[in-house]
Amino acid sequence: MLTGDFAEIADDPSIAVVAEVMGGVEPTGSYVLELLSRGKHVVSANKQLVARRGAELFAAASEAGVQLRFEASVCAAIPVIKVLRESLVVTHVHRVLGIVNGTTNFVLTRMEAGRSYDEALAEAQRLGYAEADPTDDVSGADAAAKMAILATVAFKSRVELEDVFFSGITTLDELDVAAARELGMVIRLVGAARLVDGSVDVNVQPAFVDAQHPLAKVDGAFNAVMLQGDAIREITLEGPGAGGVETASAVIADVTSVIGTMGTGFLQNDAAWRSLPRLARGDSRSPFYFRLHVEDRPGVLARVADALAERDVSVARLLQHANGDGAVLHVVTHDARAGALEEALEALGRLPEVHDRSLPRPVVSDRGVPQ
Amino acid sequence: MLTGDFAEIADDPSIAVVAEVMGGVEPTGSYVLELLSRGKHVVSANKQLVARRGAELFAAASEAGVQLRFEASVCAAIPVIKVLRESLVVTHVHRVLGIVNGTTNFVLTRMEAGRSYDEALAEAQRLGYAEADPTDDVSGADAAAKMAILATVAFKSRVELEDVFFSGITTLDELDVAAARELGMVIRLVGAARLVDGSVDVNVQPAFVDAQHPLAKVDGAFNAVMLQGDAIREITLEGPGAGGVETASAVIADVTSVIGTMGTGFLQNDAAWRSLPRLARGDSRSPFYFRLHVEDRPGVLARVADALAERDVSVARLLQHANGDGAVLHVVTHDARAGALEEALEALGRLPEVHDRSLPRPVVSDRGVPQ
Repeated sequence: MLTGDFAEIADDPSIAVVAEVMGGVEPTGSYVLELLSRGKHVVSANKQLVARRGAELFAAASEAGVQLRFEASVCAAIPVIKVLRESLVVTHVHRVLGIVNGTTNFVLTRMEAGRSYDEALAEAQRLGYAEADPTDDVSGADAAAKMAILATVAFKSRVELEDVFFSGITTLDELDVAAARELGMVIRLVGAARLVDGSVDVNVQPAFVDAQHPLAKVDGAFNAVMLQGDAIREITLEGPGAGGVETASAVIADVTSVIGTMGTGFLQNDAAWRSLPRLARGDSRSPFYFRLHVEDRPGVLARVADALAERDVSVARLLQHANGDGAVLHVVTHDARAGALEEALEALGRLPEVHDRSLPRPVVSDRGVPQ
Repeated sequence: MLTGDFAEIADDPSIAVVAEVMGGVEPTGSYVLELLSRGKHVVSANKQLVARRGAELFAAASEAGVQLRFEASVCAAIPVIKVLRESLVVTHVHRVLGIVNGTTNFVLTRMEAGRSYDEALAEAQRLGYAEADPTDDVSGADAAAKMAILATVAFKSRVELEDVFFSGITTLDELDVAAARELGMVIRLVGAARLVDGSVDVNVQPAFVDAQHPLAKVDGAFNAVMLQGDAIREITLEGPGAGGVETASAVIADVTSVIGTMGTGFLQNDAAWRSLPRLARGDSRSPFYFRLHVEDRPGVLARVADALAERDVSVARLLQHANGDGAVLHVVTHDARAGALEEALEALGRLPEVHDRSLPRPVVSDRGVPQ
């Protein structure tokens, strides 16, 4: 049966579960709210809808005593939502690290192999990995929506899209790729969600990832999500994060799970959210990589080191190369406050000996859990 | 409340779900059967019980209309059973590849780093990764039980422990490790379950794994399971496959899932098993590695090549080294019938020019699915 009339679905009492695969935030959001309030379970593949209006939708599901499932909204067939909600029920997940956008991962993998950003993006478009307008992917917005949903489910606390700091891969160039290679690392667009002393910290940024780290080994358009928690140590799920059949498979699995739990609705609506503060952006901690173009003369290195030390930023690795009549300094820091590093970089930018500086990039090296 | 009297549990009508963590096949099996027949749902962490007596237990659960869940019986907190049974419901999973024994994976990782087998095993025992009597792990029996359970759930067909061909890591030595390194590979104890033209093929063997393959990157005591199917392409789950807290976390997640689906019991008992033939052992296909110690004189290579070609075994890579007054031939074949390769190796063993031959080892190189 085919209909273009929403009322035919909403008004039909014999329909118990609706799969929403129409996309968009409106009128989809209003439709889903109406379906929930009429006592119908809803399965959604709509990342933007869940990330932007999750609070409202979950409250409506809870009030009506029905389920809202959304496995397909994050990483298609990789069952990370079900695993978080049903398998990790007694684990306090405190950190989620993910490569959750296949387009950018493909582009970065190709840049590693020697392509320019433009060439790699064109190749991704030719192969169908990137859309004609790739803005949502390359800006990090797509990954940010997925990380908001993952953080919400992992921490059992609402994280909205606007809580996620994100920056995309458009600011990367061949110099970054070459620097990563020289440091034994690769560049990946990494989503990180952490609980830090009871505050939520969620961001998406191009990161320098140690070549031995599992996330460095995620090739091409695949996605991977690492879940770290007290009882599980670390569980990683990897697979294709997009695709029509993959998404359909996740939607049907959700429908099946709704049918299997209809009697109880267990864990699948507005159950037990808690309210958590957001970590101030500057308080986010990580090792970082950055690069300075400096004059090649005595005392420059000392001034750089001073500016960092004054702000408690400690250097873990340093490479210096001649570059024309100046030098390039590649710096990897130990764990540092993002705010302190920003201040140090601004101060360094004001020094006459520093001609140029790169953006700071987080470094992912330790797995953070015992193996 | 603590009791040593089984009847106090079995006879108590207020107990709806029982978690079995006592281990062993008897009297555990009889207890579980009785609990199921009295209408109690059972969650079990007992790999040997599920692998050896699964058919009987599931039939009893089905008859009584209750659930039997067993997430913790395979790879502790890695939620591969739930993912197979509830997330991949509309995917035909046709291949499962796994590193499902942490003890042997730790030993093999240490042998790669230069330890002898005995040193690596002693280190594993010191760190608590291996038991005082490590027979079950190093013989492959532990991994075989897990692969029987995974194949059963993945193919929705009963696979018993005796259907699994397994060989352990005790036959490996430093020569194998060195050969793998020279070929750009590592050795892993790989469990493989496949549907081949409607027949089930399940085995556990030390395999030569291409260094770029995801299974080569599973370090130390971690486990990983790759699931390949039509709608999902490939989903990999990785994490700690053992540990008390990890196992407890999986048991409690199962108890929670039972409570969440009590009204329906959906998919969690003797639902829809199908009967499938077992592939004859010799018909199992794979690329293989083997090694020959031969006399170093003209014509030997030709006779080796002939013996392989006669049986349709085609050579993909060949390395030859001088070795004392003879030579060592390292051979990697293309995809070949295991039976044909066995015959070829026996024929080669009868040649006077061939002084010694290694066991054949399957080679894992392609991922088998598009990325």
